[in-house]
Amino acid sequence: MIFDLTHPIAEGMPVWPGTPSPKLEKECTIEKDGFLETHLGLSSHTGTHIDAPAHILPGSYTLDKFRPEYFIGRAIKINLTHCHHTILEEEFLFLEDFPEAFDFVLLQTGWSRYWGHPAYFRNFPVLSLQSARFLSSSQIKGIGLDAISFDLAESNTFPNHHIFMGKGILLIENLTGLEPLPLGKSFELFALPLYFRSADGAPARVIART
Amino acid sequence: MIFDLTHPIAEGMPVWPGTPSPKLEKECTIEKDGFLETHLGLSSHTGTHIDAPAHILPGSYTLDKFRPEYFIGRAIKINLTHCHHTILEEEFLFLEDFPEAFDFVLLQTGWSRYWGHPAYFRNFPVLSLQSARFLSSSQIKGIGLDAISFDLAESNTFPNHHIFMGKGILLIENLTGLEPLPLGKSFELFALPLYFRSADGAPARVIART
Repeated sequence: MIFDLTHPIAEGMPVWPGTPSPKLEKECTIEKDGFLETHLGLSSHTGTHIDAPAHILPGSYTLDKFRPEYFIGRAIKINLTHCHHTILEEEFLFLEDFPEAFDFVLLQTGWSRYWGHPAYFRNFPVLSLQSARFLSSSQIKGIGLDAISFDLAESNTFPNHHIFMGKGILLIENLTGLEPLPLGKSFELFALPLYFRSADGAPARVIART
Repeated sequence: MIFDLTHPIAEGMPVWPGTPSPKLEKECTIEKDGFLETHLGLSSHTGTHIDAPAHILPGSYTLDKFRPEYFIGRAIKINLTHCHHTILEEEFLFLEDFPEAFDFVLLQTGWSRYWGHPAYFRNFPVLSLQSARFLSSSQIKGIGLDAISFDLAESNTFPNHHIFMGKGILLIENLTGLEPLPLGKSFELFALPLYFRSADGAPARVIART
Protein backbone atom coordinates (compact mmCIF):
# COMPACT_ATOMS: atom_id res chain seq x y z
CA MET A 1 0.00 0.00 0.00
CA ILE A 2 1.02 3.58 -0.70
CA PHE A 3 0.70 6.37 1.88
CA ASP A 4 1.16 10.08 1.22
CA LEU A 5 2.88 11.68 4.22
CA THR A 6 2.82 15.21 2.73
CA HIS A 7 0.77 18.28 3.63
CA PRO A 8 -0.48 20.07 0.51
CA ILE A 9 0.88 23.59 -0.01
CA ALA A 10 -1.91 26.19 -0.03
CA GLU A 11 -2.36 29.88 0.68
CA GLY A 12 -3.08 30.39 4.38
CA MET A 13 -1.42 27.13 5.43
CA PRO A 14 0.51 27.02 8.72
CA VAL A 15 4.07 28.31 8.41
CA TRP A 16 6.88 28.84 10.92
CA PRO A 17 6.22 32.13 12.75
CA GLY A 18 7.77 34.92 10.69
CA THR A 19 7.92 32.95 7.43
CA PRO A 20 5.82 34.44 4.61
CA SER A 21 2.74 32.43 3.62
CA PRO A 22 2.95 30.78 0.18
CA LYS A 23 1.32 32.51 -2.78
CA LEU A 24 -0.27 30.58 -5.66
CA GLU A 25 -1.28 32.92 -8.48
CA LYS A 26 -2.73 32.13 -11.90
CA GLU A 27 -0.09 33.11 -14.44
CA CYS A 28 -1.69 31.80 -17.65
CA THR A 29 -5.24 30.68 -18.42
CA ILE A 30 -6.73 28.37 -21.02
CA GLU A 31 -8.99 31.20 -22.29
CA LYS A 32 -6.17 33.70 -22.81
CA ASP A 33 -3.08 31.54 -23.40
CA GLY A 34 -4.35 28.07 -24.30
CA PHE A 35 -3.00 26.53 -21.07
CA LEU A 36 -3.29 26.95 -17.33
CA GLU A 37 -0.20 27.84 -15.34
CA THR A 38 0.39 28.95 -11.75
CA HIS A 39 3.11 31.13 -10.28
CA LEU A 40 4.36 29.79 -6.96
CA GLY A 41 5.98 31.95 -4.32
CA LEU A 42 7.15 30.06 -1.26
CA SER A 43 9.89 29.69 1.30
CA SER A 44 12.27 26.74 1.06
CA HIS A 45 10.99 25.37 4.43
CA THR A 46 7.25 25.49 3.67
CA GLY A 47 5.01 22.55 4.53
CA THR A 48 6.46 19.05 4.54
CA HIS A 49 10.13 19.70 3.83
CA ILE A 50 13.70 18.53 4.29
CA ASP A 51 16.36 20.58 6.09
CA ALA A 52 19.89 20.40 4.70
CA PRO A 53 22.86 20.91 7.05
CA ALA A 54 23.42 24.33 5.39
CA HIS A 55 20.12 25.51 6.94
CA ILE A 56 21.87 25.92 10.30
CA LEU A 57 25.58 25.10 9.92
CA PRO A 58 27.50 27.90 8.16
CA GLY A 59 29.04 26.73 4.89
CA SER A 60 27.75 23.16 5.21
CA TYR A 61 26.17 20.95 2.54
CA THR A 62 23.12 22.12 0.64
CA LEU A 63 20.41 19.64 -0.33
CA ASP A 64 21.30 19.64 -4.03
CA LYS A 65 24.70 18.16 -3.06
CA PHE A 66 23.11 14.98 -1.66
CA ARG A 67 23.00 12.02 -4.04
CA PRO A 68 19.47 10.74 -4.75
CA GLU A 69 20.25 7.55 -2.79
CA TYR A 70 19.81 9.70 0.34
CA PHE A 71 16.12 10.23 -0.36
CA ILE A 72 15.05 6.58 -0.69
CA GLY A 73 15.32 3.73 1.77
CA ARG A 74 13.82 1.55 4.50
CA ALA A 75 12.09 3.42 7.30
CA ILE A 76 10.68 2.58 10.69
CA LYS A 77 8.03 4.46 12.64
CA ILE A 78 8.11 4.96 16.40
CA ASN A 79 4.91 5.82 18.26
CA LEU A 80 5.63 8.64 20.72
CA THR A 81 2.08 9.94 21.15
CA HIS A 82 2.33 9.26 24.90
CA CYS A 83 5.28 11.68 25.24
CA HIS A 84 4.78 15.14 26.69
CA HIS A 85 7.28 17.95 26.12
CA THR A 86 10.44 15.81 26.11
CA ILE A 87 11.13 12.53 24.28
CA LEU A 88 13.61 10.58 26.37
CA GLU A 89 16.39 8.31 25.18
CA GLU A 90 14.71 5.22 26.67
CA GLU A 91 12.10 5.38 23.88
CA PHE A 92 14.81 4.40 21.41
CA LEU A 93 16.90 1.81 23.22
CA PHE A 94 14.94 -1.02 21.53
CA LEU A 95 16.53 0.04 18.23
CA GLU A 96 19.80 -1.58 19.33
CA ASP A 97 18.09 -4.97 18.92
CA PHE A 98 15.85 -4.08 15.98
CA PRO A 99 15.84 -7.08 13.63
CA GLU A 100 15.95 -5.14 10.34
CA ALA A 101 18.24 -2.51 8.83
CA PHE A 102 16.71 0.93 8.37
CA ASP A 103 17.72 4.23 6.78
CA PHE A 104 15.05 6.54 8.21
CA VAL A 105 13.36 6.92 11.59
CA LEU A 106 9.93 8.59 11.63
CA LEU A 107 8.72 9.96 14.96
CA GLN A 108 4.95 9.91 15.41
CA THR A 109 4.18 12.60 18.01
CA GLY A 110 0.54 12.93 16.94
CA TRP A 111 0.99 16.68 16.48
CA SER A 112 -0.18 16.61 12.84
CA ARG A 113 -3.76 16.47 14.18
CA TYR A 114 -3.33 20.12 15.18
CA TRP A 115 -2.30 21.22 11.65
CA GLY A 116 -4.21 24.42 10.88
CA HIS A 117 -4.76 25.28 14.56
CA PRO A 118 -2.61 27.49 16.84
CA ALA A 119 -1.93 24.39 18.98
CA TYR A 120 0.33 23.08 16.19
CA PHE A 121 3.00 25.59 17.17
CA ARG A 122 2.88 24.98 20.92
CA ASN A 123 4.05 22.27 23.31
CA PHE A 124 4.99 19.74 20.65
CA PRO A 125 7.27 17.03 22.06
CA VAL A 126 10.97 17.54 21.41
CA LEU A 127 13.84 15.05 21.56
CA SER A 128 16.13 15.40 24.58
CA LEU A 129 19.76 16.03 23.67
CA GLN A 130 20.55 12.48 24.80
CA SER A 131 17.84 11.13 22.46
CA ALA A 132 19.15 13.16 19.55
CA ARG A 133 22.72 12.02 20.21
CA PHE A 134 21.60 8.38 20.46
CA LEU A 135 19.64 8.54 17.18
CA SER A 136 22.39 10.43 15.40
CA SER A 137 24.88 7.69 16.27
CA SER A 138 22.96 5.13 14.18
CA GLN A 139 23.74 4.88 10.49
CA ILE A 140 20.64 6.67 9.22
CA LYS A 141 20.08 8.92 6.22
CA GLY A 142 17.29 10.93 7.76
CA ILE A 143 14.90 11.46 10.62
CA GLY A 144 11.34 12.72 10.26
CA LEU A 145 8.49 13.87 12.46
CA ASP A 146 4.88 15.02 12.26
CA ALA A 147 5.50 18.35 14.03
CA ILE A 148 6.95 21.65 12.92
CA SER A 149 10.47 21.29 14.26
CA PHE A 150 13.04 19.12 16.00
CA ASP A 151 13.70 22.04 18.36
CA LEU A 152 11.46 24.20 20.52
CA ALA A 153 9.87 27.16 18.72
CA GLU A 154 11.41 29.38 21.43
CA SER A 155 14.91 28.04 20.79
CA ASN A 156 17.21 30.12 18.68
CA THR A 157 20.17 27.80 19.01
CA PHE A 158 18.56 24.68 17.46
CA PRO A 159 20.58 22.12 19.45
CA ASN A 160 18.92 19.01 17.99
CA HIS A 161 19.32 20.36 14.46
CA HIS A 162 23.03 20.81 15.21
CA ILE A 163 23.40 17.24 16.47
CA PHE A 164 21.82 15.64 13.38
CA MET A 165 23.29 18.05 10.85
CA GLY A 166 26.75 17.54 12.27
CA LYS A 167 26.39 13.90 11.20
CA GLY A 168 24.99 14.76 7.75
CA ILE A 169 21.55 13.41 8.70
CA LEU A 170 18.60 14.96 6.86
CA LEU A 171 15.69 16.33 8.92
CA ILE A 172 12.16 15.88 7.57
CA GLU A 173 9.61 18.17 9.24
CA ASN A 174 5.81 18.60 9.05
CA LEU A 175 4.99 15.02 8.06
CA THR A 176 1.39 13.89 8.22
CA GLY A 177 -0.57 10.64 7.97
CA LEU A 178 1.86 8.51 10.00
CA GLU A 179 -0.96 6.74 11.89
CA PRO A 180 -1.57 3.78 9.53
CA LEU A 181 2.11 2.95 9.04
CA PRO A 182 3.21 -0.32 10.68
CA LEU A 183 5.05 -0.50 14.00
CA GLY A 184 7.91 -2.90 14.63
CA LYS A 185 8.57 -3.55 10.96
CA SER A 186 10.20 -1.51 8.24
CA PHE A 187 8.64 -0.05 5.09
CA GLU A 188 9.92 1.88 2.08
CA LEU A 189 10.23 5.64 2.20
CA PHE A 190 10.57 8.03 -0.74
CA ALA A 191 11.26 11.58 0.48
CA LEU A 192 12.01 13.49 -2.72
CA PRO A 193 12.77 17.19 -2.35
CA LEU A 194 12.31 19.86 -4.98
CA TYR A 195 15.69 20.03 -6.73
CA PHE A 196 17.12 23.55 -6.80
CA ARG A 197 20.57 25.06 -6.59
CA SER A 198 22.08 25.99 -3.20
CA ALA A 199 19.03 24.59 -1.37
CA ASP A 200 19.25 25.13 2.39
CA GLY A 201 16.19 22.89 2.45
CA ALA A 202 13.27 22.18 0.17
CA PRO A 203 9.62 21.21 0.14
CA ALA A 204 9.44 17.47 -0.46
CA ARG A 205 6.86 14.92 -1.53
CA VAL A 206 7.11 12.12 1.00
CA ILE A 207 5.49 8.78 0.27
CA ALA A 208 5.67 5.44 2.08
CA ARG A 209 5.11 1.97 0.62
CA THR A 210 4.38 -1.03 2.82
CA MET B 1 21.28 1.61 -8.82
CA ILE B 2 19.62 4.99 -8.41
CA PHE B 3 19.45 7.56 -11.21
CA ASP B 4 18.31 11.17 -10.88
CA LEU B 5 16.35 12.17 -13.99
CA THR B 6 15.73 15.74 -12.81
CA HIS B 7 17.19 19.04 -13.98
CA PRO B 8 18.05 21.31 -11.05
CA ILE B 9 16.07 24.55 -10.81
CA ALA B 10 18.32 27.61 -11.04
CA GLU B 11 18.09 31.23 -12.07
CA GLY B 12 18.73 31.57 -15.79
CA MET B 13 17.73 27.97 -16.57
CA PRO B 14 15.86 27.23 -19.82
CA VAL B 15 12.12 27.86 -19.59
CA TRP B 16 9.29 27.63 -22.13
CA PRO B 17 9.36 30.83 -24.23
CA GLY B 18 7.31 33.47 -22.40
CA THR B 19 7.48 31.78 -18.98
CA PRO B 20 9.25 33.86 -16.31
CA SER B 21 12.63 32.55 -15.18
CA PRO B 22 12.70 31.19 -11.61
CA LYS B 23 13.96 33.44 -8.82
CA LEU B 24 15.86 32.09 -5.81
CA GLU B 25 16.39 34.79 -3.20
CA LYS B 26 17.95 34.59 0.26
CA GLU B 27 15.14 35.28 2.74
CA CYS B 28 16.94 34.56 6.02
CA THR B 29 20.62 34.18 6.85
CA ILE B 30 22.50 32.42 9.63
CA GLU B 31 24.20 35.71 10.61
CA LYS B 32 20.96 37.67 10.95
CA ASP B 33 18.30 35.05 11.76
CA GLY B 34 20.19 31.97 12.95
CA PHE B 35 19.17 29.93 9.89
CA LEU B 36 19.41 30.08 6.12
CA GLU B 37 16.22 30.20 4.08
CA THR B 38 15.45 30.88 0.41
CA HIS B 39 12.39 32.38 -1.22
CA LEU B 40 11.44 30.56 -4.40
CA GLY B 41 9.46 32.15 -7.20
CA LEU B 42 8.69 29.82 -10.08
CA SER B 43 6.09 28.74 -12.58
CA SER B 44 4.30 25.42 -12.08
CA HIS B 45 5.84 24.04 -15.32
CA THR B 46 9.48 24.92 -14.61
CA GLY B 47 12.24 22.38 -15.22
CA THR B 48 11.46 18.68 -14.92
CA HIS B 49 7.73 18.71 -14.25
CA ILE B 50 4.44 16.84 -14.58
CA ASP B 51 1.46 18.21 -16.52
CA ALA B 52 -1.98 17.50 -15.09
CA PRO B 53 -4.99 17.25 -17.45
CA ALA B 54 -6.17 20.64 -16.09
CA HIS B 55 -3.13 22.28 -17.75
CA ILE B 56 -4.91 22.07 -21.13
CA LEU B 57 -8.41 20.60 -20.64
CA PRO B 58 -10.82 23.14 -19.11
CA GLY B 59 -12.15 21.99 -15.75
CA SER B 60 -10.22 18.71 -15.78
CA TYR B 61 -8.28 17.06 -12.95
CA THR B 62 -5.52 18.94 -11.18
CA LEU B 63 -2.40 17.09 -10.01
CA ASP B 64 -3.33 17.23 -6.33
CA LYS B 65 -6.36 15.08 -7.14
CA PHE B 66 -4.20 12.14 -8.27
CA ARG B 67 -3.56 9.49 -5.66
CA PRO B 68 0.13 8.93 -4.85
CA GLU B 69 -0.04 5.50 -6.53
CA TYR B 70 0.04 7.42 -9.83
CA PHE B 71 3.56 8.68 -9.21
CA ILE B 72 5.27 5.34 -8.58
CA GLY B 73 5.55 2.29 -10.78
CA ARG B 74 7.46 0.21 -13.32
CA ALA B 75 8.84 2.11 -16.28
CA ILE B 76 10.42 1.26 -19.60
CA LYS B 77 12.69 3.43 -21.72
CA ILE B 78 12.55 3.58 -25.52
CA ASN B 79 15.56 4.87 -27.46
CA LEU B 80 14.36 7.27 -30.15
CA THR B 81 17.61 9.16 -30.72
CA HIS B 82 17.52 8.13 -34.40
CA CYS B 83 14.17 9.93 -34.93
CA HIS B 84 14.02 13.30 -36.68
CA HIS B 85 11.06 15.63 -36.33
CA THR B 86 8.34 12.94 -36.10
CA ILE B 87 8.26 9.76 -34.01
CA LEU B 88 6.21 7.21 -35.91
CA GLU B 89 3.88 4.58 -34.51
CA GLU B 90 6.12 1.73 -35.74
CA GLU B 91 8.62 2.61 -32.99
CA PHE B 92 6.11 1.38 -30.43
CA LEU B 93 4.56 -1.72 -31.98
CA PHE B 94 7.00 -3.98 -30.07
CA LEU B 95 5.21 -2.96 -26.88
CA GLU B 96 2.32 -5.25 -27.79
CA ASP B 97 4.63 -8.21 -27.10
CA PHE B 98 6.62 -6.68 -24.26
CA PRO B 99 7.17 -9.41 -21.65
CA GLU B 100 6.67 -7.24 -18.56
CA ALA B 101 3.92 -4.98 -17.26
CA PHE B 102 4.79 -1.28 -17.12
CA ASP B 103 3.16 1.92 -15.81
CA PHE B 104 5.37 4.55 -17.44
CA VAL B 105 6.99 4.95 -20.85
CA LEU B 106 10.06 7.20 -21.07
CA LEU B 107 11.02 8.48 -24.51
CA GLN B 108 14.74 9.10 -24.99
CA THR B 109 15.01 11.65 -27.79
CA GLY B 110 18.51 12.74 -26.79
CA TRP B 111 17.38 16.36 -26.65
CA SER B 112 18.50 16.82 -23.03
CA ARG B 113 22.05 17.22 -24.37
CA TYR B 114 20.96 20.64 -25.69
CA TRP B 115 19.72 21.83 -22.26
CA GLY B 116 21.00 25.38 -21.79
CA HIS B 117 21.42 26.01 -25.53
CA PRO B 118 18.93 27.57 -27.96
CA ALA B 119 18.84 24.22 -29.83
CA TYR B 120 16.84 22.76 -26.93
CA PHE B 121 13.76 24.64 -28.09
CA ARG B 122 14.04 23.76 -31.79
CA ASN B 123 13.40 20.69 -33.92
CA PHE B 124 12.92 18.27 -31.05
CA PRO B 125 11.21 15.07 -32.21
CA VAL B 126 7.46 14.94 -31.59
CA LEU B 127 5.10 11.95 -31.50
CA SER B 128 2.81 11.60 -34.52
CA LEU B 129 -0.88 11.65 -33.64
CA GLN B 130 -0.99 7.93 -34.45
CA SER B 131 1.91 7.30 -32.02
CA ALA B 132 0.22 9.30 -29.28
CA ARG B 133 -3.07 7.46 -29.82
CA PHE B 134 -1.29 4.10 -29.77
CA LEU B 135 0.57 4.87 -26.53
CA SER B 136 -2.51 6.38 -24.90
CA SER B 137 -4.43 3.16 -25.51
CA SER B 138 -2.09 1.20 -23.23
CA GLN B 139 -2.85 1.13 -19.50
CA ILE B 140 -0.13 3.55 -18.42
CA LYS B 141 -0.03 6.10 -15.62
CA GLY B 142 2.35 8.46 -17.36
CA ILE B 143 4.62 9.18 -20.27
CA GLY B 144 7.87 11.10 -20.04
CA LEU B 145 10.48 12.57 -22.36
CA ASP B 146 13.83 14.37 -22.28
CA ALA B 147 12.63 17.36 -24.32
CA ILE B 148 10.58 20.42 -23.48
CA SER B 149 7.19 19.31 -24.78
CA PHE B 150 5.08 16.56 -26.31
CA ASP B 151 3.92 19.10 -28.90
CA LEU B 152 5.75 21.45 -31.24
CA ALA B 153 6.73 24.80 -29.73
CA GLU B 154 4.84 26.45 -32.62
CA SER B 155 1.64 24.53 -31.85
CA ASN B 156 -1.01 26.34 -29.89
CA THR B 157 -3.50 23.48 -30.00
CA PHE B 158 -1.35 20.86 -28.19
CA PRO B 159 -2.85 17.82 -29.95
CA ASN B 160 -0.65 15.19 -28.24
CA HIS B 161 -1.33 16.74 -24.83
CA HIS B 162 -5.06 16.44 -25.59
CA ILE B 163 -4.75 12.76 -26.52
CA PHE B 164 -2.92 11.75 -23.32
CA MET B 165 -4.82 14.06 -21.00
CA GLY B 166 -8.13 12.80 -22.34
CA LYS B 167 -7.11 9.38 -20.97
CA GLY B 168 -5.92 10.78 -17.61
CA ILE B 169 -2.28 10.01 -18.46
CA LEU B 170 0.32 12.23 -16.79
CA LEU B 171 2.93 13.94 -18.98
CA ILE B 172 6.48 14.27 -17.63
CA GLU B 173 8.58 16.84 -19.51
CA ASN B 174 12.23 17.97 -19.37
CA LEU B 175 13.67 14.71 -18.08
CA THR B 176 17.44 14.26 -18.18
CA GLY B 177 19.95 11.47 -17.68
CA LEU B 178 17.97 8.77 -19.48
CA GLU B 179 21.08 7.39 -21.24
CA PRO B 180 22.23 4.81 -18.64
CA LEU B 181 18.75 3.35 -18.05
CA PRO B 182 18.30 -0.18 -19.40
CA LEU B 183 16.55 -0.98 -22.68
CA GLY B 184 14.19 -3.94 -23.09
CA LYS B 185 13.64 -4.38 -19.36
CA SER B 186 11.62 -2.46 -16.83
CA PHE B 187 12.86 -0.48 -13.82
CA GLU B 188 11.21 1.44 -10.98
CA LEU B 189 10.23 5.08 -11.42
CA PHE B 190 9.42 7.59 -8.68
CA ALA B 191 8.09 10.83 -10.19
CA LEU B 192 6.98 12.82 -7.15
CA PRO B 193 5.55 16.28 -7.84
CA LEU B 194 5.49 19.21 -5.45
CA TYR B 195 2.10 18.90 -3.71
CA PHE B 196 0.07 22.09 -3.91
CA ARG B 197 -3.62 22.91 -4.24
CA SER B 198 -5.24 23.25 -7.69
CA ALA B 199 -1.98 22.28 -9.41
CA ASP B 200 -2.26 22.45 -13.21
CA GLY B 201 1.17 20.82 -13.10
CA ALA B 202 4.14 20.87 -10.78
CA PRO B 203 7.92 20.59 -10.69
CA ALA B 204 8.79 17.00 -9.78
CA ARG B 205 11.77 15.07 -8.51
CA VAL B 206 12.07 12.09 -10.80
CA ILE B 207 14.27 9.18 -9.79
CA ALA B 208 14.73 5.73 -11.32
CA ARG B 209 15.91 2.56 -9.56
CA THR B 210 17.20 -0.42 -11.51
